[in-house]
Amino acid sequence: MGLVVQKYGGSSVADAEGIKRVAKRVVEAKKNGHQVVVVVSAMGDTTDELIDLAAQVSPIPAGREFDMLLTAGERISMALLAMAIKNLGHEAQSFTGSQAGVITDSVHNKARIIDVTPGRIQQSVDAGNIAIVAGFQGVSQDKKDITTLGRGGSDTTAVALAAALDAEVCEIYTDVDGVFTADPRVVKKARKIDWISFEDMLELASSGSKVLLHRCVEYARRYNIPIHVRSSFSGLKGTWVSNEPQGDQPMEQAIISGVAHDTSEAKVTVVGVPDKPGEAATIFRAIADADINIDMVVQNVSAASTGLTDISFTLPKTEGHKAIEALEKTKAQVGFDSLRYDDQIAKISLVGAGMKTNPGVTATFFEALSNAGVNIELISTSEIRISVVTRADDVKEAVRAVHTAFGLDSESDEAVVYGGTGR
Amino acid sequence: MGLVVQKYGGSSVADAEGIKRVAKRVVEAKKNGHQVVVVVSAMGDTTDELIDLAAQVSPIPAGREFDMLLTAGERISMALLAMAIKNLGHEAQSFTGSQAGVITDSVHNKARIIDVTPGRIQQSVDAGNIAIVAGFQGVSQDKKDITTLGRGGSDTTAVALAAALDAEVCEIYTDVDGVFTADPRVVKKARKIDWISFEDMLELASSGSKVLLHRCVEYARRYNIPIHVRSSFSGLKGTWVSNEPQGDQPMEQAIISGVAHDTSEAKVTVVGVPDKPGEAATIFRAIADADINIDMVVQNVSAASTGLTDISFTLPKTEGHKAIEALEKTKAQVGFDSLRYDDQIAKISLVGAGMKTNPGVTATFFEALSNAGVNIELISTSEIRISVVTRADDVKEAVRAVHTAFGLDSESDEAVVYGGTGR
Repeated sequence: MGLVVQKYGGSSVADAEGIKRVAKRVVEAKKNGHQVVVVVSAMGDTTDELIDLAAQVSPIPAGREFDMLLTAGERISMALLAMAIKNLGHEAQSFTGSQAGVITDSVHNKARIIDVTPGRIQQSVDAGNIAIVAGFQGVSQDKKDITTLGRGGSDTTAVALAAALDAEVCEIYTDVDGVFTADPRVVKKARKIDWISFEDMLELASSGSKVLLHRCVEYARRYNIPIHVRSSFSGLKGTWVSNEPQGDQPMEQAIISGVAHDTSEAKVTVVGVPDKPGEAATIFRAIADADINIDMVVQNVSAASTGLTDISFTLPKTEGHKAIEALEKTKAQVGFDSLRYDDQIAKISLVGAGMKTNPGVTATFFEALSNAGVNIELISTSEIRISVVTRADDVKEAVRAVHTAFGLDSESDEAVVYGGTGR
Repeated sequence: MGLVVQKYGGSSVADAEGIKRVAKRVVEAKKNGHQVVVVVSAMGDTTDELIDLAAQVSPIPAGREFDMLLTAGERISMALLAMAIKNLGHEAQSFTGSQAGVITDSVHNKARIIDVTPGRIQQSVDAGNIAIVAGFQGVSQDKKDITTLGRGGSDTTAVALAAALDAEVCEIYTDVDGVFTADPRVVKKARKIDWISFEDMLELASSGSKVLLHRCVEYARRYNIPIHVRSSFSGLKGTWVSNEPQGDQPMEQAIISGVAHDTSEAKVTVVGVPDKPGEAATIFRAIADADINIDMVVQNVSAASTGLTDISFTLPKTEGHKAIEALEKTKAQVGFDSLRYDDQIAKISLVGAGMKTNPGVTATFFEALSNAGVNIELISTSEIRISVVTRADDVKEAVRAVHTAFGLDSESDEAVVYGGTGR
């Protein structure tokens, strides 16, 4: 039996009861003969409360100090978890990101992990302890300042530690039973996926599935660390994410892994762009200079009569204002007619490696949407994903129609088990 | 202008308003041309809340993890203070005890400072920053574990940093205006002391005065760091504690510095101890082996008729049970008659280096108590202190009578200014 890294999110350790429940689960893994390293997030609302305090003393909290503040959250939860485990008669030691050797760059509030030197953690587990590590945080390589990893940082900590410690598996405990073929809040008949490849999981994550973040899956793929996403409440087997199925996991990959949707984006259309070289470059250079990440980009064939074309792209709604401002400044240079901004859109994506070798997928997808009366506004595809933009109002119906069309519905909706008693 | 270390306690930074008020005071010192290092405690009730959480997950929280937990408190307050200072347009950086180079032994929950290596702090202030340091915490020399310094630890952090940084002064900001000739809650006419020697302050601290703890004063005396105790609310000049008076401080030391009282102790009397060598040793070895600190020890002359004597001593009430248990076990060996335990006592102490050369002091002290109708149960003296034990009910009257008898009363009770709006 090798080493296992387990990660528990804030909702799993929201209060003393939650911490005690997690302690029992951790001890179980230890009793089964594993070396256990646990990565833990801040308790429930702690981070929000700290952010609120910061806002009270300063309208724009400085990055370095903001990180120092936020990291108090995991310090509390990890120490409490270690105490709860010791109370069950097992040895446990907690470690900050810095003590655990999580080395990052110096970009406060969204630092990237550069290296993990887990000497103290390895020593601690070799001595028979359960090691508890603060998620979401590290220490900067050059200045030795405390940093935080940004959204989903604790998952990334867990995967990075798993890689550095050569773990058998990285178990991500959350408040749902795993990755589903669609969001179970929208599709009652969504099925839990037993196994999914890194590639498909990456596409789902970047298409709106929120169970795992793109960054964490990317890290796991690079170091080939199998992830097991499961519920800290139910204790059921969850979803394995890895290169190849293992053990009793299905040997054949499904044609379609799942349907994801995303309503957090808006659409910008630059209308009447002269169809000549360099125009698109000017537009997207302006967007890039404003530090805005864009998603889908679509350019129509220009109308023969006018020589003008439209360029549309999607971006997070939160970046909308900045994008319009940046584009307005290029108007004279590009010579476009007007800008249109639309935040009442949804993106629906079908993900599956099988679509590479199954030519009918695209047709079935569009037919399903058409039969449901859903209009398609933009289309964009990758090798293993098709995404469309529709009206936001249509999103639920569209997702359900596609889910059914690809035979993803479970036989009953009993199969969808939500995370027990927790949030 | 040199470097100043300022320390703010939990009541000074109890909420966002308090933190902003402290930030202004810190910036003032910086504007006056000082390099400023600030040591800060956890906000108001944070520590109690964390202790409460620990009790919910484990009845006996482990030392190492308990320290990890508690140190989250200063992490929050120091980061917020740094943000508030930056918001006033000055540069500030916060540092944990470990980052500030506070090296301790490995005794969790009450570690002792072994060394301070303030390289990062010196760098930070040399670069023009205000450095904020977490009080109460350090890192153990051998295991590199996070430790806490126990009660009054933040004051000790401040003095230790002041020593290591060769500071001009260590300012201890609190919720009273300084050290008083008696507890102003008991003696309305108590006067604020402008200057007091380390020696007298040490005696006051060990006699029940709570403004500064013995440990912190001892550290300051060893490294000759002047302490300035003052209010974070009123901003008035407070009390200087140092070897020699400086500047406009009174050149001649008062005969009596002040009257202290302490109602936290209990009295144990071992009745009927055979008056022969080794008996007292057996008794106090038993107490020492039970890890109990005792205070006053008094042995009466034995009665000629019986050859028996009584031995009394005082100790913290919290240790009473342990002491009685330890003594019961020595009964056969020592052959004493019985044990008496009394927790309705008070200790009243008169402190002042002047009593060495003023022979009337003891007499005046006893006369004052006698005139007030206060009975004396035990007496113990040092070179610069006389302490008596009385009934707890008599304590207020006794303190007032002594305070008046030594001419310590202020002319009006207007002089006593309490800590403004805060706690």
